[in-house]
Amino acid sequence: MLIVGERINASRKAIRAALEQLDPEPIRREAQQQTEAGAHYIDVNGGTFPGREPELLAWLVEVVQGVTDRPLCLDSTDPDALAAALPKIAARPPMINSITLETDRFARMLPLARDHGAKIVALCQGAGGLADSAQRKVEAASRLVERLTASGIALGDIYVDPLVFPVATDSGAVAAAIAAIGQIMRGFPGVHTICGLSNVSHGLPARKLLNRSFLVAAMSAGLDAVILDPADRELMASLLATNALLGHDDYCTELLRAYRAGRLEPQAAEKRTA
Amino acid sequence: MLIVGERINASRKAIRAALEQLDPEPIRREAQQQTEAGAHYIDVNGGTFPGREPELLAWLVEVVQGVTDRPLCLDSTDPDALAAALPKIAARPPMINSITLETDRFARMLPLARDHGAKIVALCQGAGGLADSAQRKVEAASRLVERLTASGIALGDIYVDPLVFPVATDSGAVAAAIAAIGQIMRGFPGVHTICGLSNVSHGLPARKLLNRSFLVAAMSAGLDAVILDPADRELMASLLATNALLGHDDYCTELLRAYRAGRLEPQAAEKRTA
Repeated sequence: MLIVGERINASRKAIRAALEQLDPEPIRREAQQQTEAGAHYIDVNGGTFPGREPELLAWLVEVVQGVTDRPLCLDSTDPDALAAALPKIAARPPMINSITLETDRFARMLPLARDHGAKIVALCQGAGGLADSAQRKVEAASRLVERLTASGIALGDIYVDPLVFPVATDSGAVAAAIAAIGQIMRGFPGVHTICGLSNVSHGLPARKLLNRSFLVAAMSAGLDAVILDPADRELMASLLATNALLGHDDYCTELLRAYRAGRLEPQAAEKRTA
Repeated sequence: MLIVGERINASRKAIRAALEQLDPEPIRREAQQQTEAGAHYIDVNGGTFPGREPELLAWLVEVVQGVTDRPLCLDSTDPDALAAALPKIAARPPMINSITLETDRFARMLPLARDHGAKIVALCQGAGGLADSAQRKVEAASRLVERLTASGIALGDIYVDPLVFPVATDSGAVAAAIAAIGQIMRGFPGVHTICGLSNVSHGLPARKLLNRSFLVAAMSAGLDAVILDPADRELMASLLATNALLGHDDYCTELLRAYRAGRLEPQAAEKRTA
């Protein structure tokens, strides 16, 4: 299970403040903590400060690379920002989050991704609008895989995001995403699937409980990468347990290591929410 | 999701003591608490006291029926015990847990089940021994469904238990069970699948975490009934969350009711184990 740590995101107040002041310390702390908590990639999101995304994304790349050897996930759909940030990548190829079939951006982002050997998060949406059924998600995935591989991207570098919508507004939304994950993984052997978790619980209470239940269900359907907050111990415990249950953790080594380190226990009760 | 409450089981020390002394109070308390916690059926297991299972199972039926209107799940593979307990059933038809293709018992249990309109838990094992792969489980399920329906049991009264083995001794055990659940539910529309949870985590730490992660994964594959401890609040919270995620809880009514009642919050920290 590939884990992309999502905490360095301009939508969070502390990160936004650090970006405004170009203060590297909070960014470094988040990068280190997520590395220690088990993130395989560190997502960097420079927000949408008008005209400044290229500069800020490039800055984030340099700051994060200074404190972790984990590869980065460049969280931007702006080709200019990617063009500024990609040359700063020092070592292992990054992941780009995300690309869609939207014609102009696709044409500009594709060569950048290919030239830097990047892995690509490809969103299941297309000219036809939101893919809200399993069938539409799989059709969108099929077009993405076809276009990306035809453009020289290896199947194993493609991470299809089925896009999961809130169950509070569409009771079939999660079932559709889970079915799509299974069909995509069976239909294109070697491709990956990835998604974020927090959308599913939008508008409901007990969001963390819902998010981690969704993660388990999606992993069980074949999801093999996820964008999440690795500082959420109960979420990570669910991930490790599910990895072991599904036979992806030889001799339950990772699970047992986490148990011995006390990482399967929830945090102190006063800090917890369901 | 149909919930069978498992707590009245002679393998538990307090229940065994109550059975030995024919003390109805602990049994009544367990029946009431499980009813309040959301059990749809109350499992009664009279253990294997030599020669006394018929008497004890019949006694349990009478005691439990005195305090709850929930139907019972008669947890016995002994035709004599079932023959003693079934006539004591006062109201709604019970469930019988369990039947296998073992020839002698099958022939004796089947008419009892049919005459009392019982639902039947049918275990995926046969003459060929343990069904340890998805394919063998589905083959066993197919034979069970064929035999039971040919004997006059309605498909909708059959609860197939795929039997899940510990992941610690077979890393493919849980994946096999999950795959089998999906194939059985798709292959025999209208049939049910059921299982217990605690076997998966045998020999590992953090058993409750593993058990509830397995429940979520199995529900996501189509499991629509489960034998569990409804007093385990975190397990029940995972069940409610998953039911909502899968679109089985209209308008998330049950989830929201549980949230308002504080039932999605874990118990006090000192009582909890992972």
